[in-house]
Amino acid sequence: MSQLVRPSGRPFDQMREIVLETQVTRYAEGSCLAKFGNTHVLCTASWENRVPGWMKGQGRGWVTAEYGMLPRATHTRGRREAAAGKQSGRTQEIQRLIGRSLRSVCDLAALGENQITIDCDVLQADGGTRTASITGGFVALSLACKYLVDEGVIPANPIMKQAAAISVGVYQDHPVLDVDYPEDSAGEADMNVVMSSDGGFIEVQGTGEERPLSRAELDEMLRLAEKGCNELFAAQRAALA
Amino acid sequence: MSQLVRPSGRPFDQMREIVLETQVTRYAEGSCLAKFGNTHVLCTASWENRVPGWMKGQGRGWVTAEYGMLPRATHTRGRREAAAGKQSGRTQEIQRLIGRSLRSVCDLAALGENQITIDCDVLQADGGTRTASITGGFVALSLACKYLVDEGVIPANPIMKQAAAISVGVYQDHPVLDVDYPEDSAGEADMNVVMSSDGGFIEVQGTGEERPLSRAELDEMLRLAEKGCNELFAAQRAALA
Amino acid sequence: MSQLVRPSGRPFDQMREIVLETQVTRYAEGSCLAKFGNTHVLCTASWENRVPGWMKGQGRGWVTAEYGMLPRATHTRGRREAAAGKQSGRTQEIQRLIGRSLRSVCDLAALGENQITIDCDVLQADGGTRTASITGGFVALSLACKYLVDEGVIPANPIMKQAAAISVGVYQDHPVLDVDYPEDSAGEADMNVVMSSDGGFIEVQGTGEERPLSRAELDEMLRLAEKGCNELFAAQRAALA
Amino acid sequence: MSQLVRPSGRPFDQMREIVLETQVTRYAEGSCLAKFGNTHVLCTASWENRVPGWMKGQGRGWVTAEYGMLPRATHTRGRREAAAGKQSGRTQEIQRLIGRSLRSVCDLAALGENQITIDCDVLQADGGTRTASITGGFVALSLACKYLVDEGVIPANPIMKQAAAISVGVYQDHPVLDVDYPEDSAGEADMNVVMSSDGGFIEVQGTGEERPLSRAELDEMLRLAEKGCNELFAAQRAALA
Amino acid sequence: MSQLVRPSGRPFDQMREIVLETQVTRYAEGSCLAKFGNTHVLCTASWENRVPGWMKGQGRGWVTAEYGMLPRATHTRGRREAAAGKQSGRTQEIQRLIGRSLRSVCDLAALGENQITIDCDVLQADGGTRTASITGGFVALSLACKYLVDEGVIPANPIMKQAAAISVGVYQDHPVLDVDYPEDSAGEADMNVVMSSDGGFIEVQGTGEERPLSRAELDEMLRLAEKGCNELFAAQRAALA
Amino acid sequence: MSQLVRPSGRPFDQMREIVLETQVTRYAEGSCLAKFGNTHVLCTASWENRVPGWMKGQGRGWVTAEYGMLPRATHTRGRREAAAGKQSGRTQEIQRLIGRSLRSVCDLAALGENQITIDCDVLQADGGTRTASITGGFVALSLACKYLVDEGVIPANPIMKQAAAISVGVYQDHPVLDVDYPEDSAGEADMNVVMSSDGGFIEVQGTGEERPLSRAELDEMLRLAEKGCNELFAAQRAALA
Repeated sequence: MSQLVRPSGRPFDQMREIVLETQVTRYAEGSCLAKFGNTHVLCTASWENRVPGWMKGQGRGWVTAEYGMLPRATHTRGRREAAAGKQSGRTQEIQRLIGRSLRSVCDLAALGENQITIDCDVLQADGGTRTASITGGFVALSLACKYLVDEGVIPANPIMKQAAAISVGVYQDHPVLDVDYPEDSAGEADMNVVMSSDGGFIEVQGTGEERPLSRAELDEMLRLAEKGCNELFAAQRAALA
Repeated sequence: MSQLVRPSGRPFDQMREIVLETQVTRYAEGSCLAKFGNTHVLCTASWENRVPGWMKGQGRGWVTAEYGMLPRATHTRGRREAAAGKQSGRTQEIQRLIGRSLRSVCDLAALGENQITIDCDVLQADGGTRTASITGGFVALSLACKYLVDEGVIPANPIMKQAAAISVGVYQDHPVLDVDYPEDSAGEADMNVVMSSDGGFIEVQGTGEERPLSRAELDEMLRLAEKGCNELFAAQRAALA
Repeated sequence: MSQLVRPSGRPFDQMREIVLETQVTRYAEGSCLAKFGNTHVLCTASWENRVPGWMKGQGRGWVTAEYGMLPRATHTRGRREAAAGKQSGRTQEIQRLIGRSLRSVCDLAALGENQITIDCDVLQADGGTRTASITGGFVALSLACKYLVDEGVIPANPIMKQAAAISVGVYQDHPVLDVDYPEDSAGEADMNVVMSSDGGFIEVQGTGEERPLSRAELDEMLRLAEKGCNELFAAQRAALA
Repeated sequence: MSQLVRPSGRPFDQMREIVLETQVTRYAEGSCLAKFGNTHVLCTASWENRVPGWMKGQGRGWVTAEYGMLPRATHTRGRREAAAGKQSGRTQEIQRLIGRSLRSVCDLAALGENQITIDCDVLQADGGTRTASITGGFVALSLACKYLVDEGVIPANPIMKQAAAISVGVYQDHPVLDVDYPEDSAGEADMNVVMSSDGGFIEVQGTGEERPLSRAELDEMLRLAEKGCNELFAAQRAALA
Repeated sequence: MSQLVRPSGRPFDQMREIVLETQVTRYAEGSCLAKFGNTHVLCTASWENRVPGWMKGQGRGWVTAEYGMLPRATHTRGRREAAAGKQSGRTQEIQRLIGRSLRSVCDLAALGENQITIDCDVLQADGGTRTASITGGFVALSLACKYLVDEGVIPANPIMKQAAAISVGVYQDHPVLDVDYPEDSAGEADMNVVMSSDGGFIEVQGTGEERPLSRAELDEMLRLAEKGCNELFAAQRAALA
Repeated sequence: MSQLVRPSGRPFDQMREIVLETQVTRYAEGSCLAKFGNTHVLCTASWENRVPGWMKGQGRGWVTAEYGMLPRATHTRGRREAAAGKQSGRTQEIQRLIGRSLRSVCDLAALGENQITIDCDVLQADGGTRTASITGGFVALSLACKYLVDEGVIPANPIMKQAAAISVGVYQDHPVLDVDYPEDSAGEADMNVVMSSDGGFIEVQGTGEERPLSRAELDEMLRLAEKGCNELFAAQRAALA
């Protein structure tokens, strides 16, 4: 195994600079601009005093997510999904993941019959947009829940623990933490890991399209992800303080 | 006619604070974050070395525009158009207007067989998103054209003159300049005016749904629009300097 | 400025022959075949004893419009929008204009919770289809309102004044009234003006894609539009007599 | 079996008044306004000097059809298909039938690589719109073919024989010819029959949703259809003379 | 008329081997795998204790059908309709036919406010998929109705008589029974006939795209269809015994 | 931790009965009916001598997959996606997974410019449809590749190793192998694991919506998945022998 040199010069277990800027828009009940290096995602949390039709009358709430990418968030312009007339399979897959992840740390019964929609819009993309969305989306969701408590809509905060996500990859046969776009394009495999702040794994999505992963690699990648998520939990706490 | 008090406290002929921040994204050939007070529109210009099929082989270029609004750019969350599966009539009307306006100040023959797409994405909306889109879109387009000249793609800059746009309305029976959302919701009529820097009118779109406009009101509104556009032309020149 | 010769031989301020034929279909509560020269638009007004969901319980009515063009209304066949699976941006823009214009002369409270839908279907197109639609649509709407009063559905006619529309253009540097297709294709600019019979301007939509309009041209075009609309108001009154 | 009294007062084997008015639009290569009593269908034939992709290079032409109904062609307004975003199953079924029927009397090899599109738009509906469409569509197609010969596009007329269509139904247990809307709504069964002028059956589509048809009824209905189509062939010849 | 040799070697009036296998899926209230030779259609009947909105409160039930073909049911793979985003005109035409045919033998009042949906999915296609769908769909419907009676949902079986369908064609100028794919591609004309077990004709859909049918051919084809349907009625009774 | 009793009575590490029936359809170049207990998926492999547009001229082939579920494959009828007009996010997510998994064991360069489409249609669903699709899809793909070699289309078999997939879950706090529908609905977490026959992990998709997974659970689930995939590899080899 040769000496690893990442395109960004980072050590194998170092994340990009993480910035979680809060309350960045005027109207949303909660918002966070999540920056993982050059990946910038604007996350807003919008409250509605209703739930989807299939949930009515159960006294429980709902958290859902939508994801989008501005057409020129990327190196070359992509087609605007609204103009194309549909969301791609990739977009739907990502927004389902964000929604599942955030619901898993929220006590939906404590939310009452309220719905919070997390919009994650990628302003600039350099790899890891879905993990930045989950990490920033959690901050926006927390702020919105705090708003609901402050406004007396619900008696107690339904957030049970934190959720954060990071990607780990295999680049030149080395597991690496927080994969950016150059690594992702050249990498052999990558895995998105969503964790809760009590050390549990909410989602693990690993793909080895270039080559399968060995069990040893999987283990090391999970270990790196734990390290990364712990740093993200600290950043979230600082942002919400 | 009573003494006019605008919700914002501005005099009838005063615009909101105008900010045209350039090169705000990493990848686009030109970009501008246009702020008209609390209305914030991210404008990017994307270059492609091809033209639409129906223009091939004519030696001329094309400038087109797309418009979108983040779901929570507004007071209450709107439906994401990509999820709805289509762009609304309003969206299409606006992006057609932006495209026509910008094409009218660009020498398409001098652009060669290149296409520039202006994406105008509203991050926050407080009235006047289409006029901010045109004004900021012009800056992004200019930067992209300069890039094409600098890179040797085309020999000379195809921009012939500036284009800018402002809205004028009738609020409590007074013509007012640069209508914001509170005025727009309560106003009797409004007009979007797109001008070129040689004093010409590119587009005039006036609507009096609450009540028709008199000829005298129309005249005063056009005069206010000229004043506003002249200030915008100055701001554009400063941003591009 | 050279001597103007319009393709049709008309003087600059002369409209095409205007025919407003009423009650041309068996079933509609009101109908009008509007002919502006070779432009023929079939306008029907359909009554329903209900309003859109978002208006329920307010005691007010609604007037809306839909616009379509038969595929071979034009020189070369266009794609059928129903087959294409959507209405074009142009179609939506036009039908929104027709609806806004007609609502502005109708007292929606006096209409009660009734909806009138104006369908404007272009059988043959030679320029000016949207202005013929508005002018003929007003006649169909008036007949339907009269029907509702005659049938005892509502106590009084909700029509407050007339609405009519005409296009004015710039052809070979001369402002001209009632632009037909040959003038429109070759013209420098055009403007659609919707007026109310009390002399007010309901909508002004001017576009100078070939070149911007000077303020003097705008003024002359508005003057021509007033002349044209006054002739249309007379024709409407004759048709409805 | 009681004495039959049809809503229209017609004898069981009498058709409505048939009018086939030709060249009713300015632009189409062929056109016909087909009136079967109060059912009015505007049929246009549009020529294009190309064939669909899958036919290219075979030296043969194509005839296809599209069908539409104006929203207020009927007693109560129907939804505009372009606004609904798709053509109904009924519409598609009808336009496929029109296309098949007209292709069957046209020598596609003699048409060369040309396509003729027949648009059948129902202005007013009182039953039998598909049979009026086929009957009038044939006239429009014939005129367009004559135009192509006259213009020297093709050397000889590709029309081999006439095609016409009529509906027959069972009303109060009696087979009746040329079913109108009141009979159709109350009838037990109906059948659309498309014939060629050499006495052949191109299409037979009989449906007995209320009750099945006996073999004897089927035989009598086919006999009535033959009578009706012979009258239509005469009307077509007169219109084309 | 030459001696007829069918591609399959069958005599002109012989059907393919017919298999109607019942209760082939675990969950459906009724199911039947209908095999007409190499044409295999899986028919399921699904019960819901509700009716479509427009039928509510009338005390009557509804029977409807949907049809689909697996992409590789055919010689070359066809496009998946769900991926294409719509059902073809052909699919809609077929499922409307199946629904109408099955409703015609079912007493909808006796069904109460219940809906039964017949799904006909073609696993393998060799001609005659719509007739196999109707024949097998009837068996699935009957089993579901029996289930509803057995479960006490309705007091009596609403099936009034049997429905079955067969195709007849003209191959090398001979009328033939039960057309398979090789005959269908090479044939001159074909007709789908749906009959009820009391000898009535529910639907007759004959098409002569290659050449029109003579009256004598029509008569012989109807006679063959009667023979075929009688054999299918026997097979249905055996399957349901 | 209480004694585990699975709904099916199986031990925690026992799979359902696996059947991989080959060549079950007449036309596909490869096919396999994969049964994991009551989950039945029909997998077909269709060859086309072309590649998608974006791959042309690279000399490499493509393997893609589509997934569908018959409406009544499940306990209650689901909406037909073709009728709904689009594939759900879940469907797209699954078919992207199948495609990625199968491409990862196929040498696309050795496939030449050929495309193989794997259609996975669920006839009956009892949990684990995506893993049955991958496992059966591999068999269909292998048969199609063998066909291409036998027919001389490509010189050597591009399949490099086997791919198979299994789901593992957590039921009543115990990791269990091959989750069926009753376990899935009641389970706390589940994970789909795709492996290659050389012991590598192609995809790992674990979700803990009810509660996060501990690292120890993840490890045990991966171990069970390895056991299950090894049994599936043996079943595939037997089926292909």
